[in-house]
Amino acid sequence: MKIPNKNPMIRFWNLDEETIFLNHGSYGATPKIVLEEQNRWRKIVEKDPVKFYEDIAPKALLEARKAIADFVKCDYDDLALIENATSGVNTVLRSLDFSINDEILIPNHAYQACRNTVDYVAKKTGAKVITCDIPFPIDNEQIIIERIMNCVTERTKLALIDTVTSPTGIKMPFEELVNLLEEKGVMVLLDAAHGIGMIPLNLEKIGASFTTSNCHKWLCAPKGSAFLHVRKDLQKSIHPLTISHGMTIPLDGTSRFRHEFDWTGTRDISAWCVIPFVISETSKMVGMKWEEIMAHNNNLVIDARKYICEKLDIIPPCPDNMLSSIATIKLNFEDFTKLSIHEPDSIHLELLEEYNIQVPVWYWPNPEGRYIRISAQIYNHLDEYKYLASVLENVCKN
Amino acid sequence: MKIPNKNPMIRFWNLDEETIFLNHGSYGATPKIVLEEQNRWRKIVEKDPVKFYEDIAPKALLEARKAIADFVKCDYDDLALIENATSGVNTVLRSLDFSINDEILIPNHAYQACRNTVDYVAKKTGAKVITCDIPFPIDNEQIIIERIMNCVTERTKLALIDTVTSPTGIKMPFEELVNLLEEKGVMVLLDAAHGIGMIPLNLEKIGASFTTSNCHKWLCAPKGSAFLHVRKDLQKSIHPLTISHGMTIPLDGTSRFRHEFDWTGTRDISAWCVIPFVISETSKMVGMKWEEIMAHNNNLVIDARKYICEKLDIIPPCPDNMLSSIATIKLNFEDFTKLSIHEPDSIHLELLEEYNIQVPVWYWPNPEGRYIRISAQIYNHLDEYKYLASVLENVCKN
Repeated sequence: MKIPNKNPMIRFWNLDEETIFLNHGSYGATPKIVLEEQNRWRKIVEKDPVKFYEDIAPKALLEARKAIADFVKCDYDDLALIENATSGVNTVLRSLDFSINDEILIPNHAYQACRNTVDYVAKKTGAKVITCDIPFPIDNEQIIIERIMNCVTERTKLALIDTVTSPTGIKMPFEELVNLLEEKGVMVLLDAAHGIGMIPLNLEKIGASFTTSNCHKWLCAPKGSAFLHVRKDLQKSIHPLTISHGMTIPLDGTSRFRHEFDWTGTRDISAWCVIPFVISETSKMVGMKWEEIMAHNNNLVIDARKYICEKLDIIPPCPDNMLSSIATIKLNFEDFTKLSIHEPDSIHLELLEEYNIQVPVWYWPNPEGRYIRISAQIYNHLDEYKYLASVLENVCKN
Repeated sequence: MKIPNKNPMIRFWNLDEETIFLNHGSYGATPKIVLEEQNRWRKIVEKDPVKFYEDIAPKALLEARKAIADFVKCDYDDLALIENATSGVNTVLRSLDFSINDEILIPNHAYQACRNTVDYVAKKTGAKVITCDIPFPIDNEQIIIERIMNCVTERTKLALIDTVTSPTGIKMPFEELVNLLEEKGVMVLLDAAHGIGMIPLNLEKIGASFTTSNCHKWLCAPKGSAFLHVRKDLQKSIHPLTISHGMTIPLDGTSRFRHEFDWTGTRDISAWCVIPFVISETSKMVGMKWEEIMAHNNNLVIDARKYICEKLDIIPPCPDNMLSSIATIKLNFEDFTKLSIHEPDSIHLELLEEYNIQVPVWYWPNPEGRYIRISAQIYNHLDEYKYLASVLENVCKN
């Protein structure tokens, strides 16, 4: 098979030229200019670390929060900068007081790390975990809304809702869900791990109690860059995972939430400092507005999925309007006896080792199947997915 | 006054040439070669982030743990890599189950961020905080041992003990304290924020339940690099601040502790990956073994303190054998009415703005005073402290 064409945009990234990289979704990838800008910040740190942390950093982090707030439409004082969305989920769940009378609602498509956090907190506090089964394949969003709302009881204290599910790549009807759940007095923790830079977000309008999103995924910020948004009325209940000086610094016109989250011990905060640069310069670099980048990636994944499904004779597991810029496809297999959710799938390894295609393939039990998840980022080319489809045709035969 | 000579070693760091940098203790400072090595790792990440996190990182982090274990004499499987010592203290305190029958013992010289964490956990669980008053100035270690052991009751569950106190710069008799406390059934959380690379540590011999230390301070690793050591018999009780996949991955020959701490969501782990390089190459760079670096810094701070105290007519607040490579001196002031623990001291600002000296000066209430804390790192020169002494002579007069 002919090695596929690459998108010329890939020159802006450090990604290996030999690899067909179709997994932006797992960890993101950062443009060269962003890494250079991050190095510029690191040099500022090392010139005088005391001056940096005590004088320069507070202003830089304020600018970062302002840039994010402008992007996702919220008050920048309601944002905390954190390392990743899983830490955001942990921050909320480990701050709130749950009791044996409380229920935590979570769909079965949730990210396993977050499911684990829910289980950990439930075990520690006696709260009950209610798992909502959502089918896959799925025909429309209404099914999700009905299933989730049917699981709500008077005891439901919090629901963990994804913007886009990780294993199944479904864009959830999260705006409507937040609306319905919050109206019923259920706090929604919106897990937007796949969020900023991937799908339009208007946090003020959505109105969730808590929203956390990775900047290092679809915004292409450096690794370890994410935010947690906490609605003003709930900020008193939420504390960082690392309690530090902020707990006792005099308020002096700002909020306890700000003090506590603005300093959580010495760490490398350069990934946060570059966020304003990431937002303005990545867009300029590719010559598109962010709305155009998001639409482009969405269209590319729709085209890519269509091509792969046709080639492999698979019925797409959800309609196009439930896609963002990742898509999960259930491969045509029926024997799962030797597969485990915790082991790398042999197809994943074969694609990587024999064909230099980096794309996740996994066994997933709900419903049982072998799934492949493609990502579409601005540096990808439709030919790469066509190549994947041809390779899969061979690999799945064997 | 003549600008002081600098140590030629300073060429290995990026520190501002105009600044007399006498505050290694607050945030550390990282040599140029270490930052370059860190950049090399970052390029590996960006070549294929999936390959890095799933294949390369586990091996790199194992090597980092092995290098630390070799340095502080412990089993590398008992170590977790974390961002900073405050997070280590939080990890332990927020994992353990405390109740209203428990007491947490903490000396009044403890770092405020850690004190806050103790108070947070106590409030949440009903545990009682017992503050042990340690005098300052202080004549000998025996006073500390007596005071702390006098605070132990049958209810004391955990004691937070510093290796070297942050505000007062006292090297605590931590080895003897751990021994006495653990013998009485009190778990010791050893806060070695000033630890690895500053004072010799033999964790197996010390035998504390928990030890946490910053690598970015006296080991000169990049920012956001620290470890938590948990004794094997206690590992089942300790969970990372960010619960993630590790909670449910099959054990497969390793421990739950390992699984849980080895993955806490996508973050920039390059500061951890360079630890083996930091340990071997920083030592080569300066042409000294680590024991020699530690002894050198200890001797330098002793000489520096002696000079400053003589020049300012101050009695040193503790004997030389209670110093490590930081030293706190109580300045000759008696009016503290306008001072606050939360405001930058005017002397600190004057030293920085008028004389380019970066050194912390603060008001501290136990006992009330204005304190200056000097640090000695391999890049410092005795002349810098002499210059500081002359400047202080002037500044303190006004």
